[in-house]
Amino acid sequence: MRDEKSILIALGGNAFQAKGEAGTPENYWRNAYSAAETIVKIIKEGYKVVITHGNGPQVGAILEWMDSLSDKIPPMTMDIAGAMTQGWLGYLLMQAIYNTLLKYDVLDHIKGVIALVNQVLVDRDDPAWRNPTKYVGRYYSREEAYRLSKTKNWVMKEDPRGGWRRVVPSPDPKRNIESQAIKRLLEDGWIIIASGGGGIPVVRENKSIKGVEAVIDKDLASEVLATELKVGKFVILTDVDGVYLNYGKPNQTKLNRVTVSQIEKYYSEGYFKPGSMGPKVLAAIRFIKNGGVASMIGHLDDGYNVVKGFSGTLIVPDD
Amino acid sequence: MRDEKSILIALGGNAFQAKGEAGTPENYWRNAYSAAETIVKIIKEGYKVVITHGNGPQVGAILEWMDSLSDKIPPMTMDIAGAMTQGWLGYLLMQAIYNTLLKYDVLDHIKGVIALVNQVLVDRDDPAWRNPTKYVGRYYSREEAYRLSKTKNWVMKEDPRGGWRRVVPSPDPKRNIESQAIKRLLEDGWIIIASGGGGIPVVRENKSIKGVEAVIDKDLASEVLATELKVGKFVILTDVDGVYLNYGKPNQTKLNRVTVSQIEKYYSEGYFKPGSMGPKVLAAIRFIKNGGVASMIGHLDDGYNVVKGFSGTLIVPDD
Repeated sequence: MRDEKSILIALGGNAFQAKGEAGTPENYWRNAYSAAETIVKIIKEGYKVVITHGNGPQVGAILEWMDSLSDKIPPMTMDIAGAMTQGWLGYLLMQAIYNTLLKYDVLDHIKGVIALVNQVLVDRDDPAWRNPTKYVGRYYSREEAYRLSKTKNWVMKEDPRGGWRRVVPSPDPKRNIESQAIKRLLEDGWIIIASGGGGIPVVRENKSIKGVEAVIDKDLASEVLATELKVGKFVILTDVDGVYLNYGKPNQTKLNRVTVSQIEKYYSEGYFKPGSMGPKVLAAIRFIKNGGVASMIGHLDDGYNVVKGFSGTLIVPDD
Repeated sequence: MRDEKSILIALGGNAFQAKGEAGTPENYWRNAYSAAETIVKIIKEGYKVVITHGNGPQVGAILEWMDSLSDKIPPMTMDIAGAMTQGWLGYLLMQAIYNTLLKYDVLDHIKGVIALVNQVLVDRDDPAWRNPTKYVGRYYSREEAYRLSKTKNWVMKEDPRGGWRRVVPSPDPKRNIESQAIKRLLEDGWIIIASGGGGIPVVRENKSIKGVEAVIDKDLASEVLATELKVGKFVILTDVDGVYLNYGKPNQTKLNRVTVSQIEKYYSEGYFKPGSMGPKVLAAIRFIKNGGVASMIGHLDDGYNVVKGFSGTLIVPDD
């Protein structure tokens, strides 16, 4: 039996930066503290909590920074850039949650907050390697894009939002390399921040692991970790208030409570967009099929009620 | 009684970048793998190992990157830049050590390798706040320096190496915020990378902690952690083969084995330079006075023999 009081919460980008908001340290902190309020409210109810998060805009910023001085300072590779964002965002979240625990005097039954550098294994044979889809870094002109594809062997693609950008593969996560340490700390009473940005992608190579230039979907990677930890609940907090059929259309319908078979049917019928709700729904489905008690998808600002099942979309095993 | 088979190893900058060498990812990896060979040789003898490391050139690179695009992307503060280097360098070391453990089939009695984002408490009343001494980031002209001191409230100082640079305080580390989690993982059989770059400096503010723009000496921070973990041995690996009296002069004398009282006398007589061997010797002295069994200072390339006491300088309690 899984412990229903253990939970993995996957935070969307709005935990750090609201849409259209400048990415200043002040805004990052304010958003992190806002997310921390929700998380601590959940912790106060006795939940053991693991937190994961995205890193899109931050890894983009690091790639731009490195690119701007590439003549002077050798740029690092994408796996290293991902590791940097785990330090950056892990620090913001861990300090915000720690201080919020102190504020509400919850640090007596919680040991503290830990953020880990975390690698996630992907498969060399993943079909994603033949079809890179994730835009990363800045926009280039067509000429620059051509030059970069020649000099750096980058795959460049025209972004519908304008300009050319690098695309990298998004292979399916297979295993979280550090999940046993996370499990130990979780059992011991720590709040853990892990798998930031979907984890640093690594592949097996002979008798070793090796970082690769790819981006793992953060919700799919979160599911792998949630399943390895055998937590009871898997909660995806984002900037919409749940899963909809026909989202954005006049006949849009919110799903409040669905069984895994029901939503899997909608998923296979193409109801959810690949770049947004699709991977979230897929991650939620996988979690239930892998033995989870409940998956929830909802708005970060209403995160406490999403966890309680009062808000957002609740996905449960078949009756 | 302290466990003599538990050890904290503080790595110098040469674990990532040799003097004069370009900071390319390839060089970083090669140096990290070289350090990993030494560390795994020590692990194979049954030692429980915690590793700390510096981050000077890397935090410098991040500050330069952020500075170069400050009109376009808001720069992060120094505590966040430090957190980024913990991700960056923690990742390099953890993967290099993990693969080296696999290479020598040592992963059967070791659980794995963990790198943590790690905060270190400093004191608001530290005299260092009134006298910033650590150069950080790039070199500016006198005019730029004047402007930055006005606009950003930075303390700017002429660097003897040429140009003006920002200086930040280097307060004394008091406590490692996450040491209890590190202790738990260490006892449980993990190799842990922590306190990178001296840790992210935080101060107490009312009922919370808060990041500050400062740089903690990495050897002094390593000692605080080593003492909190109650490891038996504290080893500082750097780019010189031990502690010398009159270093660089015709009458230089290497210290092979000294008691803490002997070296403390030399320290108080001003034998060791503040910017280089001084803090290492001070950290080694503190470790012994706080109950440690032995402190060692020696060359990274000969790290195994330094740990065994065959090379470098060995500092022991008074008889």
